[in-house]
Amino acid sequence: MQPINRTYAPVQAFVDELARCGVRHAVTSPGSRNAPLALVLAEQPGIEAVSVIDERSAGFVAVGIARATGAPVAVTCTSGTAAANLHPAVAEAREASVPLLVLTADRPPELRDVGAGQSIDQLGLYGSAAKWFHEVGGHEPGRATAVHHRGLACRAVATAAGGRPGPVHLNFPLREPLAPRPEDLDAADWEGRPDGSPWVAVEREPGAGGAAALREWIGGAERGVIVCGEAPGEMAAPAAALAAALGWPLLADPASGVRSGPHDRSHVVAHYDVLLRVEAFAAGHRPERVLRVGEPPVSQSLRAWLAGTDQAVIDPRVTWHDPTREARLVAAGDPATLLAELAGEGGGGDPAWVESWRAADAAVPRALAESPAGFEGAIPAALAPALPDDALLWVAHSMPVRDVEAFLPSTPRPLRVLAARGANGIDGVVSAATGAALGAGRPAHLLTGDVALLHDAGGLISARRAGAELTIVCVNNGGGGIFDFLPVAAAADASAYERHVATPHGVDLAELAALGGLAHRVAATPEEVAGAVATPALVEVRTDRAENVRLHAALVERVAELVP
Amino acid sequence: MQPINRTYAPVQAFVDELARCGVRHAVTSPGSRNAPLALVLAEQPGIEAVSVIDERSAGFVAVGIARATGAPVAVTCTSGTAAANLHPAVAEAREASVPLLVLTADRPPELRDVGAGQSIDQLGLYGSAAKWFHEVGGHEPGRATAVHHRGLACRAVATAAGGRPGPVHLNFPLREPLAPRPEDLDAADWEGRPDGSPWVAVEREPGAGGAAALREWIGGAERGVIVCGEAPGEMAAPAAALAAALGWPLLADPASGVRSGPHDRSHVVAHYDVLLRVEAFAAGHRPERVLRVGEPPVSQSLRAWLAGTDQAVIDPRVTWHDPTREARLVAAGDPATLLAELAGEGGGGDPAWVESWRAADAAVPRALAESPAGFEGAIPAALAPALPDDALLWVAHSMPVRDVEAFLPSTPRPLRVLAARGANGIDGVVSAATGAALGAGRPAHLLTGDVALLHDAGGLISARRAGAELTIVCVNNGGGGIFDFLPVAAAADASAYERHVATPHGVDLAELAALGGLAHRVAATPEEVAGAVATPALVEVRTDRAENVRLHAALVERVAELVP
Repeated sequence: MQPINRTYAPVQAFVDELARCGVRHAVTSPGSRNAPLALVLAEQPGIEAVSVIDERSAGFVAVGIARATGAPVAVTCTSGTAAANLHPAVAEAREASVPLLVLTADRPPELRDVGAGQSIDQLGLYGSAAKWFHEVGGHEPGRATAVHHRGLACRAVATAAGGRPGPVHLNFPLREPLAPRPEDLDAADWEGRPDGSPWVAVEREPGAGGAAALREWIGGAERGVIVCGEAPGEMAAPAAALAAALGWPLLADPASGVRSGPHDRSHVVAHYDVLLRVEAFAAGHRPERVLRVGEPPVSQSLRAWLAGTDQAVIDPRVTWHDPTREARLVAAGDPATLLAELAGEGGGGDPAWVESWRAADAAVPRALAESPAGFEGAIPAALAPALPDDALLWVAHSMPVRDVEAFLPSTPRPLRVLAARGANGIDGVVSAATGAALGAGRPAHLLTGDVALLHDAGGLISARRAGAELTIVCVNNGGGGIFDFLPVAAAADASAYERHVATPHGVDLAELAALGGLAHRVAATPEEVAGAVATPALVEVRTDRAENVRLHAALVERVAELVP
Repeated sequence: MQPINRTYAPVQAFVDELARCGVRHAVTSPGSRNAPLALVLAEQPGIEAVSVIDERSAGFVAVGIARATGAPVAVTCTSGTAAANLHPAVAEAREASVPLLVLTADRPPELRDVGAGQSIDQLGLYGSAAKWFHEVGGHEPGRATAVHHRGLACRAVATAAGGRPGPVHLNFPLREPLAPRPEDLDAADWEGRPDGSPWVAVEREPGAGGAAALREWIGGAERGVIVCGEAPGEMAAPAAALAAALGWPLLADPASGVRSGPHDRSHVVAHYDVLLRVEAFAAGHRPERVLRVGEPPVSQSLRAWLAGTDQAVIDPRVTWHDPTREARLVAAGDPATLLAELAGEGGGGDPAWVESWRAADAAVPRALAESPAGFEGAIPAALAPALPDDALLWVAHSMPVRDVEAFLPSTPRPLRVLAARGANGIDGVVSAATGAALGAGRPAHLLTGDVALLHDAGGLISARRAGAELTIVCVNNGGGGIFDFLPVAAAADASAYERHVATPHGVDLAELAALGGLAHRVAATPEEVAGAVATPALVEVRTDRAENVRLHAALVERVAELVP
């Protein structure tokens, strides 16, 4: 693909991807602002573009084509009332379940609502009639922009056509140059997948369709990994079976239900977050394939390592949760079913590959055991054996979820780990743990930091009134510990940082415990934590934020020494 | 007006009111669902209706008429994509500041989104392009329905034309009969004001325009009252001057700044909420005119007494806050300026009228003094003299605002009373009082019930961190005391009522005080309350909900005996 200029190149990548996804028809209406969209659609091989002057008419022409072919049709118009003229057809498409891709050009934000002309508020213009709306945004030229536009095109087509089909609205703020005047851009930045396939293919076939596509993608790859995140259903046994069949390690997020339990855990790697912080290990273990299941784990080191890999995702709800934007295949089936089907076909694998992961994983508990008191990562490790069978553990953001992901060991006893994996807020942790206890009909444990606990101080009253049996372990480092790990801690004015970011509070947790009608216990060591959680209480573990950052770095260094 | 049938009569009232408000042009498009709107607009004397088949064209015809005349133009269409066809003209009207009244017919809720045909989601259809959107709703035939539609028409015209003009969207769900088939309805129910004036006239003239309209409305009325609610600016002195000039009592909401202060308080009535609970007093004091200033007070007895009165409102921001829907004149000017202009013109008045209010008002402190310990209404009365000059008092919903309105005396010392007068929630009271203290740069007092205090338990941490100096008086009756005053208390299952409505909690307020770093003091009598608020603390006043209801009723009975 020869990119024309900074405005056209993203549109070219987008439209190229529409064609790869099977869009065969487009309807254009004239305009200057949407000239890039109209001209690129007109030039695109594989897409037949028809020009209709009146946008209202254009919208209904698109509806007619889509009704006749059953496939998504793109329709583009310029900014202003032109876009409002598409509303009748969008409303009809919503009610009649017709897949439309409505591509409105818009003025960029600095020219909106200031009388710049031909500008109306196009954000969410079609309200509930649009199945999905996305403001495409303004972007610098480069590879990330190409990936954004390619992925967006695939998502728009799959969303318009999937489930109950309907109209999808993408609003493109376009800046000069609006004319196809050539600029010198690097063509390699803008390419799609070299085999001509879509950036992301969505496989929705029920039954074996998804498994077949995955099997083809797996091919004969020996150096693969399976990354299991939170997903509906019980997938521990089939995930373990597939890992064994392929000889791939199973990187198991605590929320996946795969890290712990009575299933075959011989391929489970619990401490991937730590291992992938060890540069030599991460570089020496580049995978040929990554099969992700469910939600992406939180681990930053894992996400960084995944960038640029060949990924497929088993995602039953087609959430498009792929911050790496690398997944080329999304299988929409049930994880347990698909994993079992793939495992049943057997495989092969290189025993040395999984063994090197297994050996490295064992280094982390060794390093943890050597770590001095005061390291927060030791708390989840101490907690795991102290919890009852099938315990319900709610884990607060931001540090506790990271520490649990990094340090919670793999054990044969089942453990249900829950967290705010949606929007990752620190809010409502006590209330959510209360709800989990009420919903499951058994006691719950909450592992939280002090800021999250204070944020939901009123939740202690809710828990008490509701009669939920809660044991709270609060890592109290007098503020938001995660911020000490971030560049802001060093770069900001120290006093402003403490007051407005770290937010030490000076609250005595004994007072919070009293409010919740809970015993208050202070635990200094991992052993004391384990002993303190046997009965409902607020267990306070006091640590020091700066010291914890130092101990975390020291532990990763020690693991680097221990890794074979 | 001869009402046609249950569907047409409200539309007739609405359209009649459009004509009274000066709408002279309408554009109709054909349809069955909007036949009532189109046919009534066509028949309305004073309105010229033009028929345009295509709704998109109709919208632009309306824009053209409005641009040429400068006056609001009504445009109506049937349900479904017809309404979406108006979107381009609505967008143009928003950007060009053109007053449009977009009257879309819709299917009623039970026929929406179920494939009933010609139905799309019309709620908020034009998004941010509409200056105001209102779902008109379905209503039983009767006087209240007529008032709703008449008031709505006035509001729609004033909103479209006022400030920066623009399009207003009203969505009319219409049920059968859609044809003008006569039914037997009482014509009196549907009439507008007999003199042909609009239900509500909005006077926006700067300077003396509003005062002239108000002066004409006041006429020679002797038995008038002024009701002062919360409003921007300082209006105590001009309000007092107008009350003196007219010989009208000044019913002063604590939030108005008129109840207390160094101004002339000779006409101030503080305890109107109690007096108007005395049936004989309320019936014997029906006013000829009610001049309201600012927000309506909370008092239910006042609101009930205002129903059916001849009202005008000085409302600088044209909020349309008139739950009685009786106001016939809204003056949009600055309260202090308008009140001073009216006061300057002098007046007359019947000395016996204001004297009877004044004497009755004096009965309430007498009855309060006789009331036994445990009556919550005595707390605001005790608090007022104990607060520092110019104190900042945040008052929580639901009972404290009512008790303050009913029992806070009128004193010469200024007192700033604030409350959640917007949405009247019990949430965030500690945080809001904290913000008031920070914003005013001086300590604040908070009068709250226990449920509101517990609701914002975390606010105690915010207050402490922010260094706000708070004194909290908490009336702790172990639950939501207001509910005991409501029919639900007697009508519901007693156990479910306590658990799910009254919500006693068993929390020791000493624990909350500790959380906020506040001293905890228990005060049993009004005198002890007065003594306890001298320095920052959480002052707990324990009462009994059921006993308080009894004492409240007894107090009103005693006032009834004492009122001359």
